[in-house]
Amino acid sequence: MQIGRVVGSVVATQKDARLTTLKLLVVQVHDHENRALEQYVVAVDAVQAGTGDLVLFATGSSARQTELTEGKPCDAVVMAVVDSWDVDGKNVYEKWR
Amino acid sequence: MQIGRVVGSVVATQKDARLTTLKLLVVQVHDHENRALEQYVVAVDAVQAGTGDLVLFATGSSARQTELTEGKPCDAVVMAVVDSWDVDGKNVYEKWR
Amino acid sequence: MQIGRVVGSVVATQKDARLTTLKLLVVQVHDHENRALEQYVVAVDAVQAGTGDLVLFATGSSARQTELTEGKPCDAVVMAVVDSWDVDGKNVYEKWR
Amino acid sequence: MQIGRVVGSVVATQKDARLTTLKLLVVQVHDHENRALEQYVVAVDAVQAGTGDLVLFATGSSARQTELTEGKPCDAVVMAVVDSWDVDGKNVYEKWR
Amino acid sequence: MQIGRVVGSVVATQKDARLTTLKLLVVQVHDHENRALEQYVVAVDAVQAGTGDLVLFATGSSARQTELTEGKPCDAVVMAVVDSWDVDGKNVYEKWR
Repeated sequence: MQIGRVVGSVVATQKDARLTTLKLLVVQVHDHENRALEQYVVAVDAVQAGTGDLVLFATGSSARQTELTEGKPCDAVVMAVVDSWDVDGKNVYEKWR
Repeated sequence: MQIGRVVGSVVATQKDARLTTLKLLVVQVHDHENRALEQYVVAVDAVQAGTGDLVLFATGSSARQTELTEGKPCDAVVMAVVDSWDVDGKNVYEKWR
Repeated sequence: MQIGRVVGSVVATQKDARLTTLKLLVVQVHDHENRALEQYVVAVDAVQAGTGDLVLFATGSSARQTELTEGKPCDAVVMAVVDSWDVDGKNVYEKWR
Repeated sequence: MQIGRVVGSVVATQKDARLTTLKLLVVQVHDHENRALEQYVVAVDAVQAGTGDLVLFATGSSARQTELTEGKPCDAVVMAVVDSWDVDGKNVYEKWR
Repeated sequence: MQIGRVVGSVVATQKDARLTTLKLLVVQVHDHENRALEQYVVAVDAVQAGTGDLVLFATGSSARQTELTEGKPCDAVVMAVVDSWDVDGKNVYEKWR
C-alpha cells in the first residue's frame, strides 16, 4: 500500500456498467515523510474518505478485494483513512492534532 | 486508474484469436493537473471513447474485468470517459465547457 | 499493452517444465512516436512474430490469457503484430509501406 | 521480493472491514548492497517483524498468499525477517553480528 | 520476463510457513545488451541456478505458476537459466563460450 492525500474527485457518466455508483477519488501520492510526490492515482473510495484526508490505497488485483470493488475494472482502492504514523520513533502525522 | 487522452488507434490483423474485434486505442497518460506525460499505453476500448477524449484506464488483471475483455490477453482497458475533475477545490477539466 | 520491436530471441534449456516449447523473444519497447526506449522485455511469442516486427505485448497475469501461456510462469506475451498506428491524425507507422 | 527495513507503523481506524486486526508497517526499500532507497511501502506484517528489522516483502496478488492476508485488499506483505545475505561472495548483512 | 544475474542468496528463518524450503536468490537485473542495471530482485529459485548464472525471472502472479511457488507469497521466480541470446543478429551472450 502507499500513503496519499485525497485532493479531488472525477466525474464520468459514460463508463463501464460495473463501475456505476463507485466514487472516484484523485489521490496524490505522499512519501513516508509525508512529502507530496509528483505522482497521482485515481482510486475508488471504499471508506468514505473526505478531501484532504491522508489515506492508504492498494493497487492491482488487491484493489478488487473489497465488497464495493469485487469483479470490477478497478485497479486502485482507498481502503483506509490514516490516523497517524511514525518513522524511526518520531510521529510523522497525527490526524487529530 | 489513471487519466489519459485518446490520441490514436492501432491496427493489427495478425493477433491472438481472443483479441479479435477489440478496438485498440493509443492513450497518452496525463497527470492530475491535466499535463500530458511522456508515457503512453495501448488500451482496449470498453466505452466507445473518441479521439481527443480524456478517459480513465485500468491496468493489470483489473483490465480484464469488463464484458469485452474477460479472459483475454489485455492488460489495459479504457473503462470511462471523463466529464470533469477537480483538484484542491478547483476544476481542472470540464468536458462540456 | 505497449508497442515494441522484436530484436532477438533467448535460448534456455535448463528451465521450468511448463515453459518447454515456448519461443522467447527479446522485445525493445517503443513509445507512441515509434522511438526506441532504453527498456526491454523478454516475452513469449504467441503470434509467430519475426525479428524486426513491431508488436504489441501484454504483461502481468494478462500475459497468461493465451492458449500457449495459460498456467505458465510467463509475465509477458507478444499477442499481436502491428500493421499500423496513428497519433493525432498522423500515421506513425505502416508495416506495408 | 525486495529487501526493506521496518521504519515504523501506520494507525488507521476507519478502514475496510477485511483489514481489521492487521498490523501495517512502514517499510523503507533497500537495495542489494543494503543502501536505503528513497522508496517506501506500507505492508501488512505476517511474521511479527520489529522496528529496525531487515525484511523481505512481496507485492501484488502474491501479497495475499498468506493466511493473514488472503482475500484482503492488501498489496504488500512482510513475509520474512532477513538473517543475512551475500552478494558476489561477500556478506552484505548479518543480523546477529 | 527480464534477464538477470544471480549474485547471491538470502537467508531468513523467521518467515511465512508457506515459504519453508524455498531458496531465495539475489538477482541483479541486466538489460538486453547484458549491462548490469542498478536494479535487483529477490527471487525464488525454481531451476537450481548457480551464482553467476544469467537467468530469466518472472514477476507478479506469474511467479506463482511453478510447482514450487504455487499458492505462496512469492512475487518473483527464476524459471530459466539462459544459454544465449542475440540482439539484431549479433550474439550478446553465450554461456558455453
